[in-house]
Amino acid sequence: MKKIEGGVTAAKGFFAAATAAQIKYKDRMDMAMLYSENPCVSAGTFTTNVVKAAPVLWDQKIVSQSDHAQAIVINAGIANACTGKEGMEYCKRTAEKAAEVLGILSESVFVASTGVIGNQLPIDRICAGVEALGNKLNDDLSSGHEAALAIMTTDTHEKEVAVQFEADGKVVTVGGMCKGSGMIHPNMCTMLSFVTTDMAISKELLQEALSEDVKDTYNMVSVDGDTSTNDTCLVLANGKAGNQKVTERDENYKKFKQALNYVNQSLAKMMAGDGEGATALFEVQVIHAKNKEQAVALSKSVVSSNLTKAAIYGHDANWGRILCALGYSGVQFEPERIDLSFESGAGKIQIMKDGVAAAYSEEEATEILSQKEVRAVVDMKMGEASATAWGCDLTYDYVKINADYRS
Amino acid sequence: MKKIEGGVTAAKGFFAAATAAQIKYKDRMDMAMLYSENPCVSAGTFTTNVVKAAPVLWDQKIVSQSDHAQAIVINAGIANACTGKEGMEYCKRTAEKAAEVLGILSESVFVASTGVIGNQLPIDRICAGVEALGNKLNDDLSSGHEAALAIMTTDTHEKEVAVQFEADGKVVTVGGMCKGSGMIHPNMCTMLSFVTTDMAISKELLQEALSEDVKDTYNMVSVDGDTSTNDTCLVLANGKAGNQKVTERDENYKKFKQALNYVNQSLAKMMAGDGEGATALFEVQVIHAKNKEQAVALSKSVVSSNLTKAAIYGHDANWGRILCALGYSGVQFEPERIDLSFESGAGKIQIMKDGVAAAYSEEEATEILSQKEVRAVVDMKMGEASATAWGCDLTYDYVKINADYRS
Repeated sequence: MKKIEGGVTAAKGFFAAATAAQIKYKDRMDMAMLYSENPCVSAGTFTTNVVKAAPVLWDQKIVSQSDHAQAIVINAGIANACTGKEGMEYCKRTAEKAAEVLGILSESVFVASTGVIGNQLPIDRICAGVEALGNKLNDDLSSGHEAALAIMTTDTHEKEVAVQFEADGKVVTVGGMCKGSGMIHPNMCTMLSFVTTDMAISKELLQEALSEDVKDTYNMVSVDGDTSTNDTCLVLANGKAGNQKVTERDENYKKFKQALNYVNQSLAKMMAGDGEGATALFEVQVIHAKNKEQAVALSKSVVSSNLTKAAIYGHDANWGRILCALGYSGVQFEPERIDLSFESGAGKIQIMKDGVAAAYSEEEATEILSQKEVRAVVDMKMGEASATAWGCDLTYDYVKINADYRS
Repeated sequence: MKKIEGGVTAAKGFFAAATAAQIKYKDRMDMAMLYSENPCVSAGTFTTNVVKAAPVLWDQKIVSQSDHAQAIVINAGIANACTGKEGMEYCKRTAEKAAEVLGILSESVFVASTGVIGNQLPIDRICAGVEALGNKLNDDLSSGHEAALAIMTTDTHEKEVAVQFEADGKVVTVGGMCKGSGMIHPNMCTMLSFVTTDMAISKELLQEALSEDVKDTYNMVSVDGDTSTNDTCLVLANGKAGNQKVTERDENYKKFKQALNYVNQSLAKMMAGDGEGATALFEVQVIHAKNKEQAVALSKSVVSSNLTKAAIYGHDANWGRILCALGYSGVQFEPERIDLSFESGAGKIQIMKDGVAAAYSEEEATEILSQKEVRAVVDMKMGEASATAWGCDLTYDYVKINADYRS
């Protein structure tokens, strides 16, 4: 497997476009379209929030009922959540418009929205946007890149990645894009993430691969503990690579899972590092936990702790807050056995040994914590399970962004 | 029942003192002592964090084993958490010193600490502080007030309250003090809260009254979602009021529970409103929930949501975030039935009706949300249960305080 340039248009047969549809933002692209020249099998994972946005309900139906998904229409600025029947009707009209423009069935069109909750979509501008997008579709890398830019809300940069591997002597590509960056604490999947592949694979195995992989990738990210109403991850597979269709958990399936994991983990980390107001990617690795479930609970508890996140922002090796967050995770353990280290590009330092402070230099710790990517490694000394969670620091800018997001 | 002046020294026979012991802070009082002239029955509730500070372990033993508690020694600045055997030894030495100074048994002395996790107490200064405190004990209101000042860390003001009622024709007083204001998400009890009463009451009923009441008071407060290692609430009852000892759930017990609830709820609200960096007390009332457990989960989910808290700071009626927080609380409900209003001293406004936006004026909503105390009322329309949770807004200052707390 090797990393290549590009994102959602890296795989064969996938087209993308972006346009400025004036949904909420002025002077920037805020709508995107993904299109496959032939029908795809699709898989999806969605928010576990009881309050589900209209596009989530629409897409869940398509994933479960359709075998010929072919397009995704995305808007940034308005979430189309808590919008009642009108919101559902607008999903339908968006899909119908795309179907008309693309000459496909409306049941083949996914829709996705992100932005303010509670406002209705300006459906005329959405439909005009869909028309503009249909005319701009292109399979070059820059179209995929523009789509990644268009779906951003408070993200500071676009997020895309692609990899290739071989199956049956054919080159298979998996590429994706996603957007964060607030209300991020996916309990099923991230805010919006779209992955395309030209792998020929059965719908069942595609869904199985995705459902398993989100647990280790998007579901391990927390920016602010708020699970969105719109979290959606969609994978489209159009079979253009020419490999023999994957219908069993064979070697090719394993290779695909590795590639999918690489794409999803890369996007998840980009999202964490670009959390609202963040200055650093904060990774928490829990090792030697009793079992996987506990390793997940422990790592997510630390990565979600406001106090720990503020300490990371302050480059302060305030390890007591980490031990505290482990302590309220719901997992039982003996505090006096825990070891803790911090790592980054600037080095590695042991902070805590057997539950109490190790002899370490605060200056050295501060230097290590002043990098763009910082890792805490917690050794539970209880078993063989481990888990990694990703988040970011808590900064003034997080508050600023969210105190006046709507204005 | 009537509210009176004072705090922990309002009840008969209770003495307090404060001193500057140079534990961590310079030029301010940072140690306090409470003392009853006769032995008390005591009750306590403590953090559910697996990582328990040494004083929590010490006090749990005393609550369960001693029937003659008589003093509490408190220091602010160092939490004595994650301090191993040395930390436990320092609890013992603090209690022994107080016992020597006061002429009582060390098993009658509670200790409590708050501050940085991981550092060892400067035990010589603690012991010198205990000696100074013993010489300053006084039962006037200003001594109680000074004690409430001395136990503060990042609190901006002291927190004390007292009430009186009659039992058997005797005046009974219940008074208390507490401190916040970060790492506040009590799962059993708040950071540090101390209540004194001259009621004659059995140890069993005192503990029962406290254990029930913390569920509706301290446990409904969240400043930042971080459950501390040190949360402690202690109640001392010395029987000086002269009422017939309460040994049954009779009328006098009910009166005491009301008084205890008033004291605890007052302290809990003071703590929430004085959360680190807070500019407003944020109250979330969930009504017509299916049952109490769901009402609690829903109200705590909203009051703990970073995005909602940041919106309150911005005086922004961003109700979608509240619906979103209800949605990830773990409670099942129909979003299209929910009503939501905001209330404050500036009026009341309905924001959401049947799950979608009501017609309301943003200006009016902003005016209502610009007050010092703001309430959101969520009507679930599912049953008869309700719950109220208290928190505060999320501000730049929260980040500032916690990014460099140790320096």
